[in-house]
Amino acid sequence: MSDLLHRQIAEMLHSAKHILAVAHIRPDGDAVGSLLGLGLSLRAAGQKVDMLLADGVPAPFRHLPGSEQVITRPCAEYDVVVVLDSSDLQRTGGVLGERQPDLNIDHHATNLRFARVNLVDPQAVATCAILAQNLPRWGFPVSGEVASALLTGILTDTIGFRTSNMSPEVLRLAADLMEAGANLPELYRAGLVQKSFEAARYWGFGLERLQREDGLIWTTLLLADRQAAAYNGNDDADLINFLSSTDGDVIVLFNEQKGGKVKVSWRARPGLDISTLALRFGGGGHPAAAGAEISGTIEEVRERVLSETRAFLAAHRH
Amino acid sequence: MSDLLHRQIAEMLHSAKHILAVAHIRPDGDAVGSLLGLGLSLRAAGQKVDMLLADGVPAPFRHLPGSEQVITRPCAEYDVVVVLDSSDLQRTGGVLGERQPDLNIDHHATNLRFARVNLVDPQAVATCAILAQNLPRWGFPVSGEVASALLTGILTDTIGFRTSNMSPEVLRLAADLMEAGANLPELYRAGLVQKSFEAARYWGFGLERLQREDGLIWTTLLLADRQAAAYNGNDDADLINFLSSTDGDVIVLFNEQKGGKVKVSWRARPGLDISTLALRFGGGGHPAAAGAEISGTIEEVRERVLSETRAFLAAHRH
Repeated sequence: MSDLLHRQIAEMLHSAKHILAVAHIRPDGDAVGSLLGLGLSLRAAGQKVDMLLADGVPAPFRHLPGSEQVITRPCAEYDVVVVLDSSDLQRTGGVLGERQPDLNIDHHATNLRFARVNLVDPQAVATCAILAQNLPRWGFPVSGEVASALLTGILTDTIGFRTSNMSPEVLRLAADLMEAGANLPELYRAGLVQKSFEAARYWGFGLERLQREDGLIWTTLLLADRQAAAYNGNDDADLINFLSSTDGDVIVLFNEQKGGKVKVSWRARPGLDISTLALRFGGGGHPAAAGAEISGTIEEVRERVLSETRAFLAAHRH
Repeated sequence: MSDLLHRQIAEMLHSAKHILAVAHIRPDGDAVGSLLGLGLSLRAAGQKVDMLLADGVPAPFRHLPGSEQVITRPCAEYDVVVVLDSSDLQRTGGVLGERQPDLNIDHHATNLRFARVNLVDPQAVATCAILAQNLPRWGFPVSGEVASALLTGILTDTIGFRTSNMSPEVLRLAADLMEAGANLPELYRAGLVQKSFEAARYWGFGLERLQREDGLIWTTLLLADRQAAAYNGNDDADLINFLSSTDGDVIVLFNEQKGGKVKVSWRARPGLDISTLALRFGGGGHPAAAGAEISGTIEEVRERVLSETRAFLAAHRH
């Protein structure tokens, strides 16, 4: 990244009168963390900042300072709009209307560079890592609260420092954030591993139903399982990330949703790009992790997706 | 630790003619990692070293270089015996007989300081962390193979950098080991998260059977479950560490063993010392994680242990 770009960003953020920061819908740890990290750091430097998530802050991240101040729609005129961790504008939930964002900070390789100024670094493990590296350079402070937000995004996007893009620099960045006041074990527990009793029983249904066929491993979570386990979410309680550490080449999770839809999640071993498959079903993602929401009964969707996934695996087998 | 102690250790290891290094039975990542890390580093400096584990190297660590050279009983006369990661001599499986070890390197607070020279640091997250910090100081090289072994022990004893004793220094130590040639994502996957398909199904039985009563969460794995899931190990496939991230104050796992025994594992939230309870059943461990092997049927053992654990929790409730 050129010095010019960084000077431009620093100048934009320091001279703004009222900033709107926005991250993506269905927010994960990096969306929430980058939003709070940027927002609280700019505020600490005296800037007026609104922090927006169209879907609000999910429960696992409500312990983060500042999360209670996140708004769900714009509520003023803003001279600077910053979009975080979003590869396109649809990901913001349409809250910006026709307004072109001024700054786009992201680490997704598929980012469409939709803003006036774009800081897109696909080498970064998280948008939070980009901020942790650059906030001090732009003249904004990293307090304990900011560090907690930023370490959350690094932890969740690297699934606890384990993804293949990990580097010594990421560990040293995390060490710096700990020294700035972030409590790693607590953030890890809150954002990444804490499972409710209900979620653990919910996993039990999915695990007992696990099936395998060559390198393909799949399972299903039914609406009935949620009820039986008294699990409150409409997600998979992160079962797919656990399954991604089994010995399959491709893992598929079918998560039955209300209204005749099925949320499908794929995970693939290094070397396969499963996002192309998700795209064909109207979804998207990264090479190693992708998803789509597909209309149909659980049986229909499972048959279609398994058939295409088998073909994908056959085509990529040497 | 005093400089004198470190000079004494360096002198002992450099002047030895034939060294025996031993770690504990039922070896975990820190036992295997510290054994291979020390052994390969001393060998690279020209020393003659035998590496011993009474139970051999478990499958998840057989990818580590040097693991194929680990012996299961002493096979020579040794002038220097080093015991690693073991709080007492029973933990070595009795392979040393009456021989007093020359050096004892460990991080367990309960260590009995049974050797001629004792380097016991309960602040260290792992015995591997002690070695990573000190091998260069003692004049022994940390190659990529040594770094891989040492990072394995740090990863497994901190359950992937998440335990409450984590510090910025541990992350920086891990960063240094990555730079020395350790592949963090691969070691993480191999040593910590890789689950076989069979292990994942085996978990399913334990999770569906999960029970809760106030802050106490428990479950059981039966011999029949292993068979139904075609799971090969006689362990819990690490289910207890997963359960320790649920919202219980105390988690207990009953793992039925052949020969009328039950392996009981406890995990406790920060602030409770569950090792006192394990001691009462002839076991031991750390405040947050302890275990015991108890004779009896699964029903008998469960009743006795749950009753004592309820009493323990009641006594520690304010």
